[in-house]
Amino acid sequence: MTAGEIKHFLSINSLSIGTINSILDRAESFFPIGSKSVKKTPILRGKTIANLFFEPSTRTKTTFELAATRLSADVLNINIESSATKKGESLSDTLKTLASLRTDIFVVRHNQSGASAFIANLMGEQVSVINAGDGRHEHPTQALLDLFTIKRNKGNFSKLKIAIVGDILHSRVARSEIFALQRVGVKDIRVVGPRTLIPYNIECMGVKPFYNLEQGIKDSDVIITLRLQKERMKSALLPSASEYFETFGLTEAKLSCANSGVIVMHPGPINRGVEIDSAVADGANSRILEQAGNGIAIRMAIMAMLSGERA
Amino acid sequence: MTAGEIKHFLSINSLSIGTINSILDRAESFFPIGSKSVKKTPILRGKTIANLFFEPSTRTKTTFELAATRLSADVLNINIESSATKKGESLSDTLKTLASLRTDIFVVRHNQSGASAFIANLMGEQVSVINAGDGRHEHPTQALLDLFTIKRNKGNFSKLKIAIVGDILHSRVARSEIFALQRVGVKDIRVVGPRTLIPYNIECMGVKPFYNLEQGIKDSDVIITLRLQKERMKSALLPSASEYFETFGLTEAKLSCANSGVIVMHPGPINRGVEIDSAVADGANSRILEQAGNGIAIRMAIMAMLSGERA
Amino acid sequence: MTAGEIKHFLSINSLSIGTINSILDRAESFFPIGSKSVKKTPILRGKTIANLFFEPSTRTKTTFELAATRLSADVLNINIESSATKKGESLSDTLKTLASLRTDIFVVRHNQSGASAFIANLMGEQVSVINAGDGRHEHPTQALLDLFTIKRNKGNFSKLKIAIVGDILHSRVARSEIFALQRVGVKDIRVVGPRTLIPYNIECMGVKPFYNLEQGIKDSDVIITLRLQKERMKSALLPSASEYFETFGLTEAKLSCANSGVIVMHPGPINRGVEIDSAVADGANSRILEQAGNGIAIRMAIMAMLSGERA
Repeated sequence: MTAGEIKHFLSINSLSIGTINSILDRAESFFPIGSKSVKKTPILRGKTIANLFFEPSTRTKTTFELAATRLSADVLNINIESSATKKGESLSDTLKTLASLRTDIFVVRHNQSGASAFIANLMGEQVSVINAGDGRHEHPTQALLDLFTIKRNKGNFSKLKIAIVGDILHSRVARSEIFALQRVGVKDIRVVGPRTLIPYNIECMGVKPFYNLEQGIKDSDVIITLRLQKERMKSALLPSASEYFETFGLTEAKLSCANSGVIVMHPGPINRGVEIDSAVADGANSRILEQAGNGIAIRMAIMAMLSGERA
Repeated sequence: MTAGEIKHFLSINSLSIGTINSILDRAESFFPIGSKSVKKTPILRGKTIANLFFEPSTRTKTTFELAATRLSADVLNINIESSATKKGESLSDTLKTLASLRTDIFVVRHNQSGASAFIANLMGEQVSVINAGDGRHEHPTQALLDLFTIKRNKGNFSKLKIAIVGDILHSRVARSEIFALQRVGVKDIRVVGPRTLIPYNIECMGVKPFYNLEQGIKDSDVIITLRLQKERMKSALLPSASEYFETFGLTEAKLSCANSGVIVMHPGPINRGVEIDSAVADGANSRILEQAGNGIAIRMAIMAMLSGERA
Repeated sequence: MTAGEIKHFLSINSLSIGTINSILDRAESFFPIGSKSVKKTPILRGKTIANLFFEPSTRTKTTFELAATRLSADVLNINIESSATKKGESLSDTLKTLASLRTDIFVVRHNQSGASAFIANLMGEQVSVINAGDGRHEHPTQALLDLFTIKRNKGNFSKLKIAIVGDILHSRVARSEIFALQRVGVKDIRVVGPRTLIPYNIECMGVKPFYNLEQGIKDSDVIITLRLQKERMKSALLPSASEYFETFGLTEAKLSCANSGVIVMHPGPINRGVEIDSAVADGANSRILEQAGNGIAIRMAIMAMLSGERA
């Protein structure tokens, strides 16, 4: 590894601004591959990427698989549910065995915060670990692909007003977004949602809470809506999905409070009519599908960096 | 797209004879690849094929996967059951997201008639859609691989006598076969089965119904036996599997009513002792295993055509 | 096939010493690929390997998949549970169909002894079959990777004292190990375990039984510990896992009875604190992780040999 490079990709919090910019630049250089006739670059040929998803995911897993494939790497989808851990083998032994097979990168999603850091610690220099979402902790590749989407649409970060709307309390995406936006110099970050879903003392993180959607997105350049987990809708924290939509669902009427060129983002999968109205999700300001595509370029950039490949 | 080329492959009904011949010719040119030491051609290198099977299938899915692999494409097997649609995402959003990842072709199997046309309509020019079987509507790749098998065995279509035997009423294969055989000029097409499984007014389709197997296959050059769905055996439409076999099961004795060079086909998987006797399935007239292999060449040809690749 | 070459790889018992040595040499030549930047050789490009696992397995299946991938072959993972056999198709028809798709090698794991020989017999010259474990019969690729590990660590076989410890009675690994070690000339082979888990008359196989661990591993150069199946722990054959560990679990104290350079092996997945103590599994004498890595080189060598590829 040379200066600025990293062995594992675990959290936005642990990344320098230099590393973030280097990933964004690399993603930009990979971006045109998606439009080429042969969507391939040989950079990671002969490398093995293992998808270790302890939590179900289609979007993130598929994007990582495509990113690896477009880098010409080989992908191993480990069905961790039916794996040797079921036969009484410890997780640590399963992972060490995978490493002894000369796997290069583990892509890890787990419902426990810190799982990927634990695995990275176990692997040391042997295998690189990418956090593809761990419990309520972080979802750093999502945050970087959102930075990438904002940069491609807005050019410069420093003067932007950005609102993150929804369940801030339980969202690993929200945490990673805030860290990432601050790292690249965004000064005006607002978090918007019902009081029950905004952490007490959130101001300590350097963001401003709003309990009213119109006020929160006023004059904003970017609105990041978050997915509302179904569990939350059933719990005491929220009255009902329809009442949530009435108050915090993003409609075209409410969107008019934002700047005219505002872009609307969402990590997906979206709940239409809950956190966002279809007219907005499919409207001219929406960048939701663009985000998904950008996820490939960002994940290609991260995997290439971890492999120390420069070409 | 140039003249005669198509964006989606949805039904035999929508194909011109020019397109059908072009696919058959292309399949013929791909056919030798299966016998080569390196079973590969680089035609679709860097393209992404997504298998979207909403209905279980081993044979069709495996054949599409192998066809894509032999064209050097990358295959994405989407486990649609455990996908984001389970998290409340609409099917349309799941598919649009896949398209935004620059997927080139969706291979769709669905238990609802018209599902692949619906998806093709949704995708427009963005992604090509192949119908790998939709409800009771059509199974057009099966029909083309059967044309291909007949052509390789019989040379010319126009003078053939062809009998389709079994559950014509519920079979998407039967519908596609009839359309395809008529397109290439077969004049003598018979459908054979119990009255309860032959559509009323089937003569309107230009085929002749027979309710007796020996009469139906008399002097025929090709017999296409259909799979009898288990559900049918239990329903009021049929007395029992053994009684069906006695009346409509193809045995060597009954086969003697056909022309001496008759070939026997079946889309598989076969129910031995229900629609066909083992002696016939494994006998000299059977082309059942040949059909499976031909399925690869036909699907390679269709995917290459949809991609507009000519090499 | 030229002299010494084989069509199927079904059991150690059926291999000549020439074939075994040829596989070991080939594995040695493949071994460095795991450390290269591009972990690939084009030897099996355009070949199709089908994984047919009727019994769950992560380690063996993953290793075969990686071995095939590093030989540049295409891998087809057949989900045999949800396959056409569920639709009433006979296993034999499913396999013949796969063969008609020009699959080159079937990798078969099955819980019935003789299953892979049955399949090989069915396939004849059409497809090569590799036994990846069949019932209580054999697990020959495991035995060869263990030979390979011993050879890389000890150089020469003939003067070694080797102890196999555990459930000899039910273990296909034990059977294959004994055959393999005898084939390469090991004269001092001991089997060690409780009387209930050592076959009566085992001396006929040319090995010596010990019912005491310390005596069995005395002066040994290699100790192969076997996995204790959970079913066994619950049955009348064994008092309890903890009592087994006390008597036959390999600890550092007991290991001191062996030669100072003894190596400790285990096919995995290991039950820590049952058949082996963590201090031994993770200690300097352990070759357990090395075995897993060696499994790739051995399986590459076997697949290359079956394909008749020499490069």
